Amino acid sequence: MHNTENGMEALRLSEVAVLVDGELVGAEDPEITGVAGLEDAGPGDLTFVGRKKLNKVLAASGATAVIVGPDQEVDRPAIRVKDPYGAFAAFLERLLPDPDRLFPPGIHPTAVIDPTAEVDKVVAIGPYSVVGAGCVIGAGSRLGAHVILGCDILVGRDCLLHSGATVREGCLLGDRVIVHSGAVLGSDGFGYLTTKDGIHKIPQVGVVEIHDDVEIGAGCCVDRATTGRTIVGTGSKIDNLVQIGHNVRLGEHCSLSAQTGIAGSCTLGDGVFCGGQVGIADHIGIGAGVKIGGQSGIINDVPAGKSVFGYPALDLKESFRMFASLRRLPELFRRVRLLEQNPGRSAEVTGKDQE
Amino acid sequence: MHNTENGMEALRLSEVAVLVDGELVGAEDPEITGVAGLEDAGPGDLTFVGRKKLNKVLAASGATAVIVGPDQEVDRPAIRVKDPYGAFAAFLERLLPDPDRLFPPGIHPTAVIDPTAEVDKVVAIGPYSVVGAGCVIGAGSRLGAHVILGCDILVGRDCLLHSGATVREGCLLGDRVIVHSGAVLGSDGFGYLTTKDGIHKIPQVGVVEIHDDVEIGAGCCVDRATTGRTIVGTGSKIDNLVQIGHNVRLGEHCSLSAQTGIAGSCTLGDGVFCGGQVGIADHIGIGAGVKIGGQSGIINDVPAGKSVFGYPALDLKESFRMFASLRRLPELFRRVRLLEQNPGRSAEVTGKDQE
Amino acid sequence: MHNTENGMEALRLSEVAVLVDGELVGAEDPEITGVAGLEDAGPGDLTFVGRKKLNKVLAASGATAVIVGPDQEVDRPAIRVKDPYGAFAAFLERLLPDPDRLFPPGIHPTAVIDPTAEVDKVVAIGPYSVVGAGCVIGAGSRLGAHVILGCDILVGRDCLLHSGATVREGCLLGDRVIVHSGAVLGSDGFGYLTTKDGIHKIPQVGVVEIHDDVEIGAGCCVDRATTGRTIVGTGSKIDNLVQIGHNVRLGEHCSLSAQTGIAGSCTLGDGVFCGGQVGIADHIGIGAGVKIGGQSGIINDVPAGKSVFGYPALDLKESFRMFASLRRLPELFRRVRLLEQNPGRSAEVTGKDQE
Repeated sequence: MHNTENGMEALRLSEVAVLVDGELVGAEDPEITGVAGLEDAGPGDLTFVGRKKLNKVLAASGATAVIVGPDQEVDRPAIRVKDPYGAFAAFLERLLPDPDRLFPPGIHPTAVIDPTAEVDKVVAIGPYSVVGAGCVIGAGSRLGAHVILGCDILVGRDCLLHSGATVREGCLLGDRVIVHSGAVLGSDGFGYLTTKDGIHKIPQVGVVEIHDDVEIGAGCCVDRATTGRTIVGTGSKIDNLVQIGHNVRLGEHCSLSAQTGIAGSCTLGDGVFCGGQVGIADHIGIGAGVKIGGQSGIINDVPAGKSVFGYPALDLKESFRMFASLRRLPELFRRVRLLEQNPGRSAEVTGKDQE
Repeated sequence: MHNTENGMEALRLSEVAVLVDGELVGAEDPEITGVAGLEDAGPGDLTFVGRKKLNKVLAASGATAVIVGPDQEVDRPAIRVKDPYGAFAAFLERLLPDPDRLFPPGIHPTAVIDPTAEVDKVVAIGPYSVVGAGCVIGAGSRLGAHVILGCDILVGRDCLLHSGATVREGCLLGDRVIVHSGAVLGSDGFGYLTTKDGIHKIPQVGVVEIHDDVEIGAGCCVDRATTGRTIVGTGSKIDNLVQIGHNVRLGEHCSLSAQTGIAGSCTLGDGVFCGGQVGIADHIGIGAGVKIGGQSGIINDVPAGKSVFGYPALDLKESFRMFASLRRLPELFRRVRLLEQNPGRSAEVTGKDQE
Repeated sequence: MHNTENGMEALRLSEVAVLVDGELVGAEDPEITGVAGLEDAGPGDLTFVGRKKLNKVLAASGATAVIVGPDQEVDRPAIRVKDPYGAFAAFLERLLPDPDRLFPPGIHPTAVIDPTAEVDKVVAIGPYSVVGAGCVIGAGSRLGAHVILGCDILVGRDCLLHSGATVREGCLLGDRVIVHSGAVLGSDGFGYLTTKDGIHKIPQVGVVEIHDDVEIGAGCCVDRATTGRTIVGTGSKIDNLVQIGHNVRLGEHCSLSAQTGIAGSCTLGDGVFCGGQVGIADHIGIGAGVKIGGQSGIINDVPAGKSVFGYPALDLKESFRMFASLRRLPELFRRVRLLEQNPGRSAEVTGKDQE
C-alpha cells in the first residue's frame, strides 16, 4: 500500500473487495489507484455500475475495475455486491479524512455560545464560531471554524456547517443539512418600493426553512421571505454561488447547478433539474420533473415534465431546431435574394419559350 | 393573538389600524396572518396600494385586506392612512426582531478594535469583528459578528454591516449604508498587463466609495479602482452576488438584480434598472433611466431612457420582434423551399392558361 | 506635493522620473495626479506604452504623460525607461499602502495555530485567523484577518491570502499565490448519484492544487476533485465570483473574467481567455489560446487557437454573421411574404405584356 499521485492509498482490488464486503469477480487482481464515475474513470480507477442499462457506458469506460450488482455482466475485473452505489460510497468515505480531525468533537474554547442557546452535548463547534441567543443545535451536528449563527436559529441533527457559513436570525434547518463555506442563509430579500423620491426598503420579516438532507453549496445566498418562509425542500442539492430569492418554494429532490439564480416568489416542483447559470424570473411556476438546460432564461411558467432550453427558454426540441435553423440563416438570406433576382425562374423559361 | 405558521403574530385588522394610526374601512374585521406585496398576497395577507392606478391589480390580488391612501376605492376590508407605504413598512418593521437582540449595543469584548480607530460611542460591534488602524465609525452604526474592516475605512452614521461583511483598506461608506453578509468591498480590480512572459498584475491603488442609503447584497464584490474611486451612487440597491468592476461609476437610485456583472470602467447614469444576471462589458456607458432585461449582454453604449434586452442586447421592442420571428424561422425555411420548388406559381398558372 | 482627489499624492513628472530611474523627455514638467491604462487615462494621468504598435492608441489617449521604452516615439511629456511596464508597476506599488500596515508582521495573538502546523517565522497572520492541524506555511506568506485554513494545507512562499479567504483540508498552494476575500478553495464537488429514492452524495475525497503566481478573485469557489486534483495552472488569473468545478484542469496563464463557471472535469489549455459570465458544460476540452466572448455558453470542445462567442457558442465570425442576419430576420419575413404574394413578378409582367 503506497500513496498514489492523487493522494489515495493504492490498493489491490481484492483488498477493496474485503473492505466493501463483496466478491472478487475474475482471475485478475489489479492495483486500484483512484476512484471515479463511469465516464470519468481511466486506468487505475475503480468505478461502479448501479443499473443494468449502463452496459454500453461501461464498455466505453476506461476504468480498470468496477463494482457491480448481482446480475450485472462484466467485461473487466469487478467486485460483486448487493448495492453497488452503497459499496462505492462506503469505499470513498474510507478515503475521507477522519471527521474528528476536520471537526474535533466538542466546543472550541474560542466559540461564543449565547447562554440562552440550547446546544446538544454531542456536537462539534470550531474556533471562533458564534451561536446567537435562542439557537437550538441538535445532536451530531458539526460546525467548522467561523460559522455564524444569528439569533433564534434551529439546526437539526447531524447537520454539517462548513467553516465560514452564515445563517441569519430565525432560520430553520432540518436534519442532515450540509451548508458549505461562504454560504449565506437568511439574507434580506430584494424587496423595495420605488417612488419618485427613490427606492425604499420593504422590511424582510420572514425566514428561510431548509428541509432534511439538503446540501447548499459554497457562496450560495438564500434570501429570507418578505413574510413567511423561503423553502428548500427535502433532499434538494444546490451547487455553488446559487441565488435563491425571497419567498421561493423549491420542491423536494431538486438539483440546481452552479450560479443559477431564482428570483423572488418562484415555485419549483419536486425533482426539478437546473443546469448551471440558469435564470428564472420572479413569480414563475416550474412543474415537477422539469429539466432546464444550462444558461437558460425562464420568463414563463413551465409545465411538469418538460425539458426546456435557451434564452428565452423554449421546449428543448424546438430550441434545438430553431438554433439549427439559425445557423443556416445567412444561407437563407442568399436563397431569398436569388428568388428575388430571378422571380419565377420557370416562368421566365416559359417566357423565353414564347419568344 | 397567536403565532401564525409564518412566524408572524396573528392580529385583527382593527388592531393593525391602531398600530399604524389609520382608519378601519368596512364592517369586517378579518384576522391578518401575513403581509405581502399586491401580487404575492393571498388569504390572510395584508397588502397596500400606493397609487390609484393599481385598482385592477388590487382587484386581482388575493389579499384579505389592504392599506390605502385617502382617495383610493376599496373592494375589501381596508385601513385608510395618509401614506400607505409608510404605514405598511412601519407595520412590517414592528414584525422585525428587536434590533438590540440582533445587534446588542456596545462593543463585544472579543472584537479587535485598533487603538487608532475612532469609533463613536453609540455603536454595536459584534463578536470577533475587526476594525483596523485609522478607521472611523459614525454614530448609530451597527456591525454584526465577524465583520472585517481593514485600515483607514470611513463608515458613516447609522450604517448596518451584517455578519461576515468585509471591507478592505481605504474604502468610504456614507450614511445609512447596508452591507449584507459575505459581501466584499474593495477587492482588487482585475487589471493585468499580458506579455509573452505571462500575465502581470497592475497594482490596484484606488478605493471604493459607497454613497448614502446604498444597500449591497450578500456575496457581492465591489472592486477598488486601479487609481481613483469605484463609486456606487446615493440610494442604489444591489442584490446578491453582483460583481462591480474597478472604476465603475454607478449613478443614484439604480437597482441591480442578483448575479449581474459590470466590468471595469463602466459608467451608469441615475435610475438604471438591471434585471438579474445581466452582463455589461468594460468601458460601456449606460444613460440615466435605462432598463435592462434579465440576462442581457451589453456590449455597446445605451442612450438614456432606453429599454434593452437580449444577448447581445437590442432595443426591447426590436428584441421581442426578432425573437418572435426567430421562433417562426423553421417555418420560413419551409416557405422558401416551397418558393424554390414552385417558382412563380401564379406565373405557372399564367403559363397553363396559355396552353 | 499634495493629496489629489483620488487619494494619490500629486507629483511633478520629473519627480516620477527620479523614482522610476528614467529620463524625462520633453521640456514640460506637468503635474501627475493619477495613473491609468492607456484607454482609461485622462488629464493629469500618467500611463505607459509597452509596445510600439500602440502608437495610435497613445495618440487617442487623454493621458497627460506616458512612460515609454527606448525606441518609442512620443507625442507628449514622457519618461523613457528600459522596461515601461516594470517602471509603471513599480510606481503604482509606491502608491500602495505600506504592506506592514495592511498585514502587520508576525502572528496576531488571537490567531489559532494548531501546534502541529509548521509556520515559517517570517509570516503575517491576522486576527482570528485559524491554521489547522498539519498545515505548512512558507516564508513571506501573509494571511489577513479571519483567514481559515483547514487541516493539512500547504501554502508556499510569499502568498497573500486576504481577509476572509477559506481553504479546506488537503489543498495545495504554490508560491506567490493571491487569494482574495471570501474565496473558498476545496469546497465539495457537486457529485451525486440520482436514483428513484433521491439524490445521493458521492464523497469528494480529492483536493485543489493551485500553482505558482495564480490569483483567485473575491467570492470564487474552486471545488475539490472527487478523487485526484482540481488544478489551476501557473500564472492563471481568476476574477471575482468564478466557479471552478471538481476535477477541472485549468492550464497556465489563463484569464477567467468575473462570474464565469466551469463545470466538472473540463480541461482548459494554456493561455485560454474567458470573458465574464461564460459557462462551460462538464467534460469539455478547450484548446490552448482559445478566446471565449463574454456570456458565451460552451457545450462542445473548442480546438486550440479558436475564438468563439454566443449561446451556444460558435466561431466568432460565424456568430457575428449570424447575429447580423438575425437582426434582419423580420425584414426577411416581409420579403418572403412579398415573394409569396407576387410569385414571379417579372413573369406577371410578361403576362401583362401578353394581354
